Amino acid sequence: MKKNIGNVLALYPTPAVVVGTEVNGKVNWLLVAHVGIIGHDQIMLSLFKKHYSNEGVKQTGKVSVNMVNEAMLVRADYVGCVGGAKADKSDVFIYHKGEAGTPVIDESPLVMECEVVDNYETDTFDNFICKITNTYVDEDCLTKRESPITTS
Amino acid sequence: MKKNIGNVLALYPTPAVVVGTEVNGKVNWLLVAHVGIIGHDQIMLSLFKKHYSNEGVKQTGKVSVNMVNEAMLVRADYVGCVGGAKADKSDVFIYHKGEAGTPVIDESPLVMECEVVDNYETDTFDNFICKITNTYVDEDCLTKRESPITTS
Repeated sequence: MKKNIGNVLALYPTPAVVVGTEVNGKVNWLLVAHVGIIGHDQIMLSLFKKHYSNEGVKQTGKVSVNMVNEAMLVRADYVGCVGGAKADKSDVFIYHKGEAGTPVIDESPLVMECEVVDNYETDTFDNFICKITNTYVDEDCLTKRESPITTS
Repeated sequence: MKKNIGNVLALYPTPAVVVGTEVNGKVNWLLVAHVGIIGHDQIMLSLFKKHYSNEGVKQTGKVSVNMVNEAMLVRADYVGCVGGAKADKSDVFIYHKGEAGTPVIDESPLVMECEVVDNYETDTFDNFICKITNTYVDEDCLTKRESPITTS
């Protein structure tokens, strides 16, 4: 028997990611749970407008999207709770610059560098439409076909 | 060691849903894997423009979003492979009409009825922006707080 519980957003679980940006030249990290897929080559990052990272996205037009593994969980949670305007979060993860110049977290098993091509704004959210430019995968996560392992 | 495998869309797994529409007055089902979240009250359904269901979404301005359980998998796959223009798929799932008039699959554990408020079009995709109007959950999937059980 189904119960109507109102207009509840119940599309879960979805993958949470750590988004890497540069704000005023300094690396910043933000945990983002709402990432969607558009077509077959774009993703949409839905970020509350007041996040510090949004400035960096607008300044640079690019982001890294870092998948989270278990070892990263506590720090991923931290960068989702503490704002970049108050705290320097640049050293929470060890990173290097990807070919497109975004911060790629060393220990993340799968990272997409993205170019931001549009912003579908809603009242309180920037919804950044992103084209994927590079995808980095840990070699032990690759199948023989060189596609990432998924459970879907 | 990470390997650059090009611009691969690798944001998986994400929840696949069966989208219910009415096209020319007849119920049609389509399996949709690319559903994103915007803000806290909207979802985005990314549908290849040539799908038959898109007509129904445009005609009626509403859809049902039915989560898939294991028992539904084979039929969910079927409605994703066979086009509604050729086959009558209305009887693949037993359904009733929700309060907003969309087809709600009886056996789906969690269904959201949505109003379509916009279409963020890309080259080959309709990306329907949807406001959730009703959420139906099987009572045995509810916790005491009457929120759906999630594993996130």
